[in-house]
Amino acid sequence: MKNESSYIGIFDSGIGGLTVARSVFRLMPNENIIYFGDTAHLPYGTKSDKQIREYAVNDVTFLQNFDIKALVIACNTADSVARETLEEKFHLPIFGVIEPASQRAAKITRNGRIGIMATKATVNSRAYDRMIRKYNPDAQIFSLACPLLVPLVENGRYQKDDPVVKLVLSEYLEELKKEDVDTIVLGCTHYPLLEEAVRSLVPELSVISSSEAAARSLKAGLEAEGLLKETSGSIRRYYVSDDAEHFRENALIFVGDQLGGEVEQVTV
Amino acid sequence: MKNESSYIGIFDSGIGGLTVARSVFRLMPNENIIYFGDTAHLPYGTKSDKQIREYAVNDVTFLQNFDIKALVIACNTADSVARETLEEKFHLPIFGVIEPASQRAAKITRNGRIGIMATKATVNSRAYDRMIRKYNPDAQIFSLACPLLVPLVENGRYQKDDPVVKLVLSEYLEELKKEDVDTIVLGCTHYPLLEEAVRSLVPELSVISSSEAAARSLKAGLEAEGLLKETSGSIRRYYVSDDAEHFRENALIFVGDQLGGEVEQVTV
Repeated sequence: MKNESSYIGIFDSGIGGLTVARSVFRLMPNENIIYFGDTAHLPYGTKSDKQIREYAVNDVTFLQNFDIKALVIACNTADSVARETLEEKFHLPIFGVIEPASQRAAKITRNGRIGIMATKATVNSRAYDRMIRKYNPDAQIFSLACPLLVPLVENGRYQKDDPVVKLVLSEYLEELKKEDVDTIVLGCTHYPLLEEAVRSLVPELSVISSSEAAARSLKAGLEAEGLLKETSGSIRRYYVSDDAEHFRENALIFVGDQLGGEVEQVTV
Repeated sequence: MKNESSYIGIFDSGIGGLTVARSVFRLMPNENIIYFGDTAHLPYGTKSDKQIREYAVNDVTFLQNFDIKALVIACNTADSVARETLEEKFHLPIFGVIEPASQRAAKITRNGRIGIMATKATVNSRAYDRMIRKYNPDAQIFSLACPLLVPLVENGRYQKDDPVVKLVLSEYLEELKKEDVDTIVLGCTHYPLLEEAVRSLVPELSVISSSEAAARSLKAGLEAEGLLKETSGSIRRYYVSDDAEHFRENALIFVGDQLGGEVEQVTV
């Protein structure tokens, strides 16, 4: 029987999902959290669909070692490719990153033209297209694979005055501006770190972080089920499939010193 | 009993090793080749040493399914981190990418100041430092992790007039020029594709491709053992641990339509 003290299980191919965790910390500081980063197999974005599904099933199988009240797929690639597989296989409330951001984009666009920035795998899956049209059937969606952004962010290059960041982002944003979009979804969990840089380059556009949207949707879902933890004090634990120290160092880029829990390496 | 018709086994974490294969095709067009790309686990450069060693052992174990006369570690990261492990475990003539490029750099530098461009894992291993000093004890080595280059190349961005390529390379080369190097080693198998762009930015420096140096060293080694295949006609086979079609498409960036053989997915 799940109760409010049970854990929120969050997984990602590596470290990007920490932007979702960071939003969860801010919105629901009392929640107990188990984060699994499949760092031995990152990045998922360049792998085949079949391989991504296998990895995702292993990730959730590991999380089931804990008393999990809700599962968050904190990886756009895994959410777009492996969501159905996970829903068939596991009996858990599953929250993703794509539906919340899609719902919000569908709602706030004024001209119905929405740009998606994402990995190649997410773009090819057309998951955002389907999901946005579910909420706004007339929306026009322009998806752009932005393969240089994850490497930039993972190397700590996301500041709005970094010349490489500006040049690469400008090139991508130019493509979307050509399509006259008024709303842009940052459809990869790495990209919220670039949110400020994006906003400074296209201040006239609405920018949606899929990580922030995911945390809001999770909060609403837990609230509806009476599973929101109200008592203070939270446990946070991190597990990774490659070196723990490596993860701890890289986590600094994503959440500063806000991890708030130990990191341990496990074999999955 | 090995003979000249046996295969040269080449492995890499993915596709970068194809620059070594390409140099082998050019220098030794008659050789039979088995290439293994561990695409399910790429990139190695961001993984821990222990993990890289495990993967490398699995890669070579797979190649031993064939009649292999020589093994080429076509990955600077694996060569720098897993070389000793492989030499202990397997009884095969093993050729790498680091020693040949180091030997050449040690020889051609005039001022004894050598710059190494490589992945973070290769830089941390200090393998180039040790190897260059073996041949030139007085050399001063300046190693620079260039983590943005692999993503650029893998996205087909290596042309010398690409503004992003120019900006990123200039930033890295500026660091090395500050150290007054006269020789630069492209110490990652992806980087030879950037050779022209590098040369056009620093025409005053000597630029060494670790892939080309590796192929030359392999040729010399096979010649010395009487194992060079003289008869014409070559068999080339490619095996990958993730999707074969994905590899075929990406291979276009590295060798154009020169693969000259089938690609098959295997589980290792």
